[in-house]
Amino acid sequence: MTPDEFRELGHAAVEWVARYWERLPELPVAGSVRPGDVAAELPGAPPDKGDRLEGIFTDLDDVVVPGTTHWQHPAHFAYFPANTSGPSVLGDLIGAGLGTQGMMWATGPACTEVETVMLDWLADLLGLPERFRGGKGVIQDSASSATFIATLAALHRASGGAWRTDGVRGSFAVYTSSQGHSSIEKAARVAGLGDKAVRSIEVDPSSLAMRPEALRAAIEADRAAGVVPALVVATIGTTSTTAVDPLPAIGAICREFGVWLHVDAAYAGAAAACPEFRWINDGLDLADSYCFDPHKWLLTGFDCDALWVADPADLTRALSVLPEFLRNAASESGTVVDYRDWQVPLGRRFRALKLWFVLRWYGVEGIRAHIRDGVALAQRFAAAVRADDRFEVVAPHPFGLVCFRLRGEDDAANETLLRRINETGRCLLTHTKVRGQYVLRLAVGAPSTRTDHIDATWKLIQETA
Amino acid sequence: MTPDEFRELGHAAVEWVARYWERLPELPVAGSVRPGDVAAELPGAPPDKGDRLEGIFTDLDDVVVPGTTHWQHPAHFAYFPANTSGPSVLGDLIGAGLGTQGMMWATGPACTEVETVMLDWLADLLGLPERFRGGKGVIQDSASSATFIATLAALHRASGGAWRTDGVRGSFAVYTSSQGHSSIEKAARVAGLGDKAVRSIEVDPSSLAMRPEALRAAIEADRAAGVVPALVVATIGTTSTTAVDPLPAIGAICREFGVWLHVDAAYAGAAAACPEFRWINDGLDLADSYCFDPHKWLLTGFDCDALWVADPADLTRALSVLPEFLRNAASESGTVVDYRDWQVPLGRRFRALKLWFVLRWYGVEGIRAHIRDGVALAQRFAAAVRADDRFEVVAPHPFGLVCFRLRGEDDAANETLLRRINETGRCLLTHTKVRGQYVLRLAVGAPSTRTDHIDATWKLIQETA
Repeated sequence: MTPDEFRELGHAAVEWVARYWERLPELPVAGSVRPGDVAAELPGAPPDKGDRLEGIFTDLDDVVVPGTTHWQHPAHFAYFPANTSGPSVLGDLIGAGLGTQGMMWATGPACTEVETVMLDWLADLLGLPERFRGGKGVIQDSASSATFIATLAALHRASGGAWRTDGVRGSFAVYTSSQGHSSIEKAARVAGLGDKAVRSIEVDPSSLAMRPEALRAAIEADRAAGVVPALVVATIGTTSTTAVDPLPAIGAICREFGVWLHVDAAYAGAAAACPEFRWINDGLDLADSYCFDPHKWLLTGFDCDALWVADPADLTRALSVLPEFLRNAASESGTVVDYRDWQVPLGRRFRALKLWFVLRWYGVEGIRAHIRDGVALAQRFAAAVRADDRFEVVAPHPFGLVCFRLRGEDDAANETLLRRINETGRCLLTHTKVRGQYVLRLAVGAPSTRTDHIDATWKLIQETA
Repeated sequence: MTPDEFRELGHAAVEWVARYWERLPELPVAGSVRPGDVAAELPGAPPDKGDRLEGIFTDLDDVVVPGTTHWQHPAHFAYFPANTSGPSVLGDLIGAGLGTQGMMWATGPACTEVETVMLDWLADLLGLPERFRGGKGVIQDSASSATFIATLAALHRASGGAWRTDGVRGSFAVYTSSQGHSSIEKAARVAGLGDKAVRSIEVDPSSLAMRPEALRAAIEADRAAGVVPALVVATIGTTSTTAVDPLPAIGAICREFGVWLHVDAAYAGAAAACPEFRWINDGLDLADSYCFDPHKWLLTGFDCDALWVADPADLTRALSVLPEFLRNAASESGTVVDYRDWQVPLGRRFRALKLWFVLRWYGVEGIRAHIRDGVALAQRFAAAVRADDRFEVVAPHPFGLVCFRLRGEDDAANETLLRRINETGRCLLTHTKVRGQYVLRLAVGAPSTRTDHIDATWKLIQETA
């Protein structure tokens, strides 16, 4: 494809995306396709001769859009938001055009240094403690990978460095609350600890936050049994209900026992952009690593998880490999960062561009306005739920997520309610279980969501109930 | 950013990318920035008020471009190619605009099914054996991650399923040739086996391919010592020299001893698009998993590794997790694929779009022409090297990579030659060590590379020598 051919199709693609965003409010939030419907629309083999993308935009309209769950829809209230935005898409477009493979500083100086600076900008935006400032950050694909990296660094440290050469020898334990994300179990498993290594720590039944005294008891029991406590994962904003674990108390315990503390703020971390939410960082100066996902609530398209470590040498000591074909003068000078040693894969693309574009376009004020909009809409929804006796709000909701259910009804009734709401295609909510009960989750956060989307969704829920 | 604002800036971004591609041949291949130069050009904190991206294209020209190693430059002969192309960038642009998070079928039916079909298209393109056809493929970020996934599935199988719950208990070994990629060591390490678990199998000194009898001896020695042979990684096209391991013999040994065989064809796998290179697939019907990187030599921007497994249940049995908040009717029907259980991270973006765009634009014939161009240019270069008595070609070069050195000169002389060539900015080559000697690597593969780039580079090398 020549640059001129790219210009022509590129302008059409930009127009297609803009038009897609304009049409979004009219589309059903989740497609109504059945399994196999999309695949059936595609030929069984690649074309012999190129078709020069003739008809591609029609195919996108006819095959892809009907088969898409529209995460950017203003009434997509499922899971957590997976924001994207115009500036993010532009940053990705430039990055794709550059085609940089920034595995090392030498293979992408700008790719590396813009990333270092953007992670410092984010640390500034969120008011992170000093220990995470000044080149301590790196982009991972997701919070799952950040947790995995933290697990590896923790194992390396807990084993006195033997892990790197000898592997997992003896028993190690990982601690998280019963509300911790499934990626913590997965990280422990793929790190070779097995699911059994994960201790599910009891939560306070009201706040759903980890009980520090239960953490202490579990650590002490493991030590007494000859198990090495390697890692605690505390959560700021759990996936089920956005519960906030008490970091100061958890951090003190980790210090006392020499356990790596990783803080997973995948969704809620973005809220700290607003001074009124800075309290979520309390105790973060006791953490060894911290992550949140700009690709959730910070207007940056997937994938973009921001991970900070207090001592990046903990990562490089655990993860570095140095085959001859990657040796280069810049790396050996010791004056550059090679992010390949801060992650599991070798290659990496120029994801910092989209952060740069987003932070420039919106500025700190624009980001704060976006977070505050989401929170205000969620509080509006929660107030409406509370005002209707048929419903109850089942957990604290300081951010953009509200968990609620039909009061006094069984799980089946709530499940039916959710199914019927979603079947309308006018909104999409998901569910979880809280204290053993089936509850509905409404997560606000798309930049296009407005008061009328919230009110219309609440009306639909009331009528369906 | 409104759709109209996006249109305006989007058209400017498309123009910037097209213009960048047009300017590439005139740019020095590697920037001449020193460590810290790029970071010094950026403000220390994000702006309070958004700047609406004013001046962003000037900043890209002034800050990013000079700090970029231009992987898409026609004279970028370093490492392996990391192709991108117009259609790939368009596919990424559409994917970024959709903002789909396709962790499960339910959250992205089209994202999932287009991926399944594209992996079948690729299997067709490459002539992969039947065991990898019909929904056996998945996109990973990189071959590193594919190797890691294969390691995990192999451990699960070798442990009789105990690995998932109990972790790494006892001793397991991983085998690869002394020319295997560093990601194999890294995969073993992060899987909790430790670097010591990796057996570096001797190669034939001429072909640099794994010696099957040495593999057999290593497996037998481990078994005798109570170590469980878990995984063999054979390579089609090693990173140093593109050596091709003898799959039929290696596969037979893996069958005999019940060891998982993963085949890493990260770079060279793309060559099988051409019938004259189908021989690289010989023995692949004995493999449990296979991967290659469309983001290397198949015109598809990073990241896009294609991984196939003969039995996808090997992945889901090892990797599945099911928290309540991800339960959904489609998954429970058993009729859909949830790719989250085929990888380590949970989230995923719509990477199949770029494959669809690339395969449609070029067609099978266009892909073949691209591969053949790269091979022909490499052979032209090798012939030129051979015709000059001062140089020697040090390894077989069936694909697009040529390894060569100054004949009879020591490592320092060759290292100096490489440094001086690269300092001109007119081309970029890298190095490796072959049989203990420092050698230069010239890897062809960018779609814009033409005969005159090869000839000019060879002339520069001759003059510098």
